[in-house]
Amino acid sequence: MKDKGHFPDFRFPPILKKLKRGPQIILPKDLGVIVSYAGIGRNSIVIDAGTGSGFAAVFLGNIAKKVYTYEIRPDFAEFAKKNIIRSGLDNLVLRQKDVFKGVKEKADLIMLDLPNAEKIFRSKFNLAEGGYIVSYLPNFEQVKKFVEAARKKNFETFTIEVMVRELMFREFTRPQTKGLMHTAYLTFAKKQVVQRPIQNVKKK
Amino acid sequence: MKDKGHFPDFRFPPILKKLKRGPQIILPKDLGVIVSYAGIGRNSIVIDAGTGSGFAAVFLGNIAKKVYTYEIRPDFAEFAKKNIIRSGLDNLVLRQKDVFKGVKEKADLIMLDLPNAEKIFRSKFNLAEGGYIVSYLPNFEQVKKFVEAARKKNFETFTIEVMVRELMFREFTRPQTKGLMHTAYLTFAKKQVVQRPIQNVKKK
Amino acid sequence: MKDKGHFPDFRFPPILKKLKRGPQIILPKDLGVIVSYAGIGRNSIVIDAGTGSGFAAVFLGNIAKKVYTYEIRPDFAEFAKKNIIRSGLDNLVLRQKDVFKGVKEKADLIMLDLPNAEKIFRSKFNLAEGGYIVSYLPNFEQVKKFVEAARKKNFETFTIEVMVRELMFREFTRPQTKGLMHTAYLTFAKKQVVQRPIQNVKKK
Amino acid sequence: MKDKGHFPDFRFPPILKKLKRGPQIILPKDLGVIVSYAGIGRNSIVIDAGTGSGFAAVFLGNIAKKVYTYEIRPDFAEFAKKNIIRSGLDNLVLRQKDVFKGVKEKADLIMLDLPNAEKIFRSKFNLAEGGYIVSYLPNFEQVKKFVEAARKKNFETFTIEVMVRELMFREFTRPQTKGLMHTAYLTFAKKQVVQRPIQNVKKK
Repeated sequence: MKDKGHFPDFRFPPILKKLKRGPQIILPKDLGVIVSYAGIGRNSIVIDAGTGSGFAAVFLGNIAKKVYTYEIRPDFAEFAKKNIIRSGLDNLVLRQKDVFKGVKEKADLIMLDLPNAEKIFRSKFNLAEGGYIVSYLPNFEQVKKFVEAARKKNFETFTIEVMVRELMFREFTRPQTKGLMHTAYLTFAKKQVVQRPIQNVKKK
Repeated sequence: MKDKGHFPDFRFPPILKKLKRGPQIILPKDLGVIVSYAGIGRNSIVIDAGTGSGFAAVFLGNIAKKVYTYEIRPDFAEFAKKNIIRSGLDNLVLRQKDVFKGVKEKADLIMLDLPNAEKIFRSKFNLAEGGYIVSYLPNFEQVKKFVEAARKKNFETFTIEVMVRELMFREFTRPQTKGLMHTAYLTFAKKQVVQRPIQNVKKK
Repeated sequence: MKDKGHFPDFRFPPILKKLKRGPQIILPKDLGVIVSYAGIGRNSIVIDAGTGSGFAAVFLGNIAKKVYTYEIRPDFAEFAKKNIIRSGLDNLVLRQKDVFKGVKEKADLIMLDLPNAEKIFRSKFNLAEGGYIVSYLPNFEQVKKFVEAARKKNFETFTIEVMVRELMFREFTRPQTKGLMHTAYLTFAKKQVVQRPIQNVKKK
Repeated sequence: MKDKGHFPDFRFPPILKKLKRGPQIILPKDLGVIVSYAGIGRNSIVIDAGTGSGFAAVFLGNIAKKVYTYEIRPDFAEFAKKNIIRSGLDNLVLRQKDVFKGVKEKADLIMLDLPNAEKIFRSKFNLAEGGYIVSYLPNFEQVKKFVEAARKKNFETFTIEVMVRELMFREFTRPQTKGLMHTAYLTFAKKQVVQRPIQNVKKK
């Protein structure tokens, strides 16, 4: 999403301000929640695909121990490479490769900002115990496919949307008039623990 | 906020699941956005006050290099101490002290979950260049006081609220019926850069 | 939805306070928006199905000239009948009949709170010029079916969700903590005017 | 608010499409909820101030028995007069007068879209039993003043904000990306019934 400065939601941390905008990016509101719900920290190994502009990779690289970022398109990979250099981070490995062709690295988080994220469940990957696969998908139909593919492989999932609204303090105080109402649904998939019965979401 | 399991928003990362619930905590939806908007990462130094149950300290300690957490109440400090031990983290320093009596550590983030957070602007602190003071305040009047105190000291601020809504995939798909509509407003205060004119929020 | 008094969103106008709660009802937040977006007023003829507890029929009957309300289940029709008497309104006609078997009355609004609302597009009905068919459907899949069935018959549609959040004024001021995050999606279907080209929703 | 067609929220009922846009208007999302929460119907008498473009007056006139609309500014009154003629309604009385100078008509609803709406509580008015004074105020500080003035005169109040989000059905389905996040807070004030103790909002 190109930031034309209209939306106060586009408030970027210093690490991302160093980067150039290219292909659509994941915003801090969603990146932050991915980190907090998946419990990513300074010892985490993260796989990120597709790299796109490299914003998510750099954001996650600022937190995690190591980030392997996969981008199939050479032009995006080239663009991201420059952003990675701008970031000054040295724990990012950029691979111009299809993430669905298989990834060997044992990861605590596999973050997928790709249209057919559900393909991961037919791919080879190596998720650490308690690790998450997270998809960032704007459309409802995509999320449904991802959830169904995850469940078939005995992953538990939950799906959320994150809305951020700014409160403006000027002469008077009021919420922002216009803003972002939707970016994407975040789905968290976690290997189901076998010993206990499948935990159903409470009926309401 | 005591989690009685009713709200799917209470989905906790592994690091927080090890802890016991005591005084009200900041939820992952807010913690994640604090981290992402303030740009906290594995090299960051964080000051957190009040410690309360220690959830925020542990969450931030999992990400940052070092967390100094201040709690004035001995009972809370005692409770938090046990949670810190449960977390297994060794980069947390708990101080049973009033954060407003002054903190020496140079920090990238001073996170305040205290009713009178605006007192920080009359206290001694040592904020790194580009660092943030962030307040977590449920009430409108508190936020206003904080914003006004910040501006008097030439801090720029922006205030947001973060809403997370779950999408339920059962026989059919729909958003969750009931849930959390408000926890607190997050205000980010940053030292204004002197060289450029005061950046006003665009009129809309 | 049974009101147990927990949610300040359940604030009812005098006309509905006279009624007894039976089967799930449509809340004022959604009823009001149906009225305003469909432009219902004191000269409007409305068809409502299924009647359920009769809340929507009574609400609409308080505004419109005439309301024909259809309920297939005898027990619900019996329950609603008593509510209609309690309301004191004399412009409501209750029919214990399947609305999809065909309705003759020319209506400005056909409001469907029924699981298979899309069946209306294969039924006989008589919509006034500029009139709306509105469905109240909680699940995504139902809405999609309704939209697709409408479009096949050259109806234009738009779908909205209405969220109401209360601001609490006590010692301090803050939004309500917990509340209703979803009731149903409202879809408005309107016969496409032939003379002008199909109006596409702006790409964003 | 000028409709430039960007926001799907600006979907207007036929009665309002006849009008010309002048001074800021109240949108259907808010008008509908005012009608439904205040229980306005074909027998209601409504007072509306300030008239502005006359949208609210026409909208309410389409529903209520009679609407008296007050506008202090001659230019707005002139503009609104033409819109009232365009609407074809004959139950609207436009008064170029200050509503706070006193209104004689007994009303079921006094709707105030005026910056200092709290002045009504120091004015003369004649509210029908069970009637509502409703303010439409964008800023937090204004709402607080209104609530405090209402309570001093033994009015009960509740304040809500109404958010409408569109679900887009194109190749895929997703909520609208950008849109209206805030128009105004609606506060409903109702004369407290003396016999029963003051009903407090449940503590949560």
